[in-house]
Amino acid sequence: MRLAVIPGDGIGPEVVTEALKVLAEVVPNAETTNYDLGATRWHATGELLPESVLGELRQHDAILLGAVGDPSVPSGILERGLLLRLRFELDHHVNLRPARLYPGVRGPLADPGDIDMVVVREGTEGPYAGNGGLLRKDTEHEIATEVSVNTAFGIRRVVADAFKRAEERPRKHLTLVHKTNVLEHAGSLWSRIVEEVSLEHPDVTVAYSHVDAATIHLVTDPSRFDVMVTDNLFGDIITDLAAAVTGGIGLAASGNLDITRRNPSMFEPVHGSAPDIAGQNLADPTAAVLSVSLLLDHLGEKEAARRIEASVAFDLATRDQASPGATQAIGDRLAALVSSNTRQAG
Amino acid sequence: MRLAVIPGDGIGPEVVTEALKVLAEVVPNAETTNYDLGATRWHATGELLPESVLGELRQHDAILLGAVGDPSVPSGILERGLLLRLRFELDHHVNLRPARLYPGVRGPLADPGDIDMVVVREGTEGPYAGNGGLLRKDTEHEIATEVSVNTAFGIRRVVADAFKRAEERPRKHLTLVHKTNVLEHAGSLWSRIVEEVSLEHPDVTVAYSHVDAATIHLVTDPSRFDVMVTDNLFGDIITDLAAAVTGGIGLAASGNLDITRRNPSMFEPVHGSAPDIAGQNLADPTAAVLSVSLLLDHLGEKEAARRIEASVAFDLATRDQASPGATQAIGDRLAALVSSNTRQAG
Ligand SMILES: CC(C)[C@H](C(=O)O)[C@@H](O)C(=O)O
Ligand SMILES: CC(C)[C@H](C(=O)O)[C@@H](O)C(=O)O
Repeated sequence: MRLAVIPGDGIGPEVVTEALKVLAEVVPNAETTNYDLGATRWHATGELLPESVLGELRQHDAILLGAVGDPSVPSGILERGLLLRLRFELDHHVNLRPARLYPGVRGPLADPGDIDMVVVREGTEGPYAGNGGLLRKDTEHEIATEVSVNTAFGIRRVVADAFKRAEERPRKHLTLVHKTNVLEHAGSLWSRIVEEVSLEHPDVTVAYSHVDAATIHLVTDPSRFDVMVTDNLFGDIITDLAAAVTGGIGLAASGNLDITRRNPSMFEPVHGSAPDIAGQNLADPTAAVLSVSLLLDHLGEKEAARRIEASVAFDLATRDQASPGATQAIGDRLAALVSSNTRQAG
Repeated sequence: MRLAVIPGDGIGPEVVTEALKVLAEVVPNAETTNYDLGATRWHATGELLPESVLGELRQHDAILLGAVGDPSVPSGILERGLLLRLRFELDHHVNLRPARLYPGVRGPLADPGDIDMVVVREGTEGPYAGNGGLLRKDTEHEIATEVSVNTAFGIRRVVADAFKRAEERPRKHLTLVHKTNVLEHAGSLWSRIVEEVSLEHPDVTVAYSHVDAATIHLVTDPSRFDVMVTDNLFGDIITDLAAAVTGGIGLAASGNLDITRRNPSMFEPVHGSAPDIAGQNLADPTAAVLSVSLLLDHLGEKEAARRIEASVAFDLATRDQASPGATQAIGDRLAALVSSNTRQAG
């Protein structure tokens, strides 16, 4: 297993260290190569993602990313020039974001019920396409446009993936989230494709929710959701909210998948680089560890993936929620749990 | 005071009846004219908003709308052909949506803190402009675009209004909500204008939040927000979430304002027509009553507006939350409270 690792900025390197510690327990011979990308490199060289690095990244089985971003870099530079560029260049069309309320975790809801959903967010088009522009810039008559681009091809592959995931889950339920009553064109295309693909999955029940209503349901009745499928921007919004109601982005993992496997998929915690707590051994590496579990699942190492998830679940159920421990301590605990799980299974 | 009333569909007529009952206590001589628009008219005549009706609506001081929408009408027809058409034709650029957690009301959050914010949502452009289209419709190569149109003119008038409101509130705090790190063009224009207008309001503190992070804060720390200003689509999403965390859209009021007063402004509860409970005297008319309070405030009847809001606050603090009563009973209660408040004040 050849992994490219992008530790990145802030707490990124810290959580990645712990995630790799846990990985080593299930895949002792994984070959990892570090790539220095992010704020530091940009400041030093002005480079965001050199072509040569992109070429090397393509030679790996998967990419593990910590976090990128720093207040010293103008907003958007690293996001568009590095993170989104990776997602687009490597055709990460399925942005996979599970949200599960683990036993023992207390989120902000008084009565959350059982939350166990997975959001399949489109990752390579929609309002993220980067189309649009400015006219009469810096004048009183400036006009800014943003063009959401949605293709049958791009939607179908994501919707097909979402239906497959729904079919493999006990509830076999899929919810399309969009704003079809206002975004008439994109909405009609998403609706048509969901309807078409649903014919190939008669055992999956299908629901629709406007994005505004979905945010209400995520706080009043989140257990209604099983698999959600949605566009890039709506997915960005509802996965942050889904993470919040399941205990916070400190626990939320994600995979940026090229399901054709032509390019390596990339796995990253949903949280950012959190510069305020960087370098202090304070960050919770759990989201990074769960991202490794998604990585292994994607590479077919289902058993190892499940072992990591089970260890995280055990740790969350038994840890002292008020003081879960330092970054390294949590990593050590998870590595030990995975190791003992592995020995039991082996 | 000449009011146009659009009772609309489902629970719309029921909640409007109660709202007018309360209005009568503070403005006994208000002249109201009913306009039959919505699902029933569309089914009967195919009409959504005839030019003649639009012309008549323009002759009023304000419009009170109940709710429009029915499952028998294809999604989008009434929304775009009636509701959004009214907002656009009457230049309702400020979509005003207060969200306050009233004492006695229990929302979904375990530890909500004090929530008292007002969202100033742009109402006449952004992704709601209706620009965009389809190419190669109904083929495997279909492309759908949606163009978000943002103008300096359109943003400035809304941002200026938001700053004015922030200045009048004790905390004098304003948060711009956008996604500037991805929607680079629209984001830069919104940011520039907020910065420019902020120079005229040195006493207002300004913060920025990405829309995804804002949904997290709305459930983990909603009291951080005072005035929020944002575009049409982000505003749609965060106001539903803000309503949810303050007890639900059954309590959320809104005003669609033309702040130039060239056109009548329109006031409506945020909730929809709720056909499942229509005609059963089950709907809570509180959001419609609070919309009347916003209407009076906009027309300069500040004292009457405050009296209604105080009556609602009293009722919410003292009502049996589990069974707040029937639509009519709540309306009667609120009318009686407003009447006794009015007598005390008079
Ligand atoms: C950092 C930003 C560009 C990114 C996104 O909008 O996709 C982030 O919010 C995420 O969800 O991964
Ligand atoms: C019904 C719909 C068109 C409308 C909107 O999107 O503005 C509604 O959600 C609202 O918030 O008033």
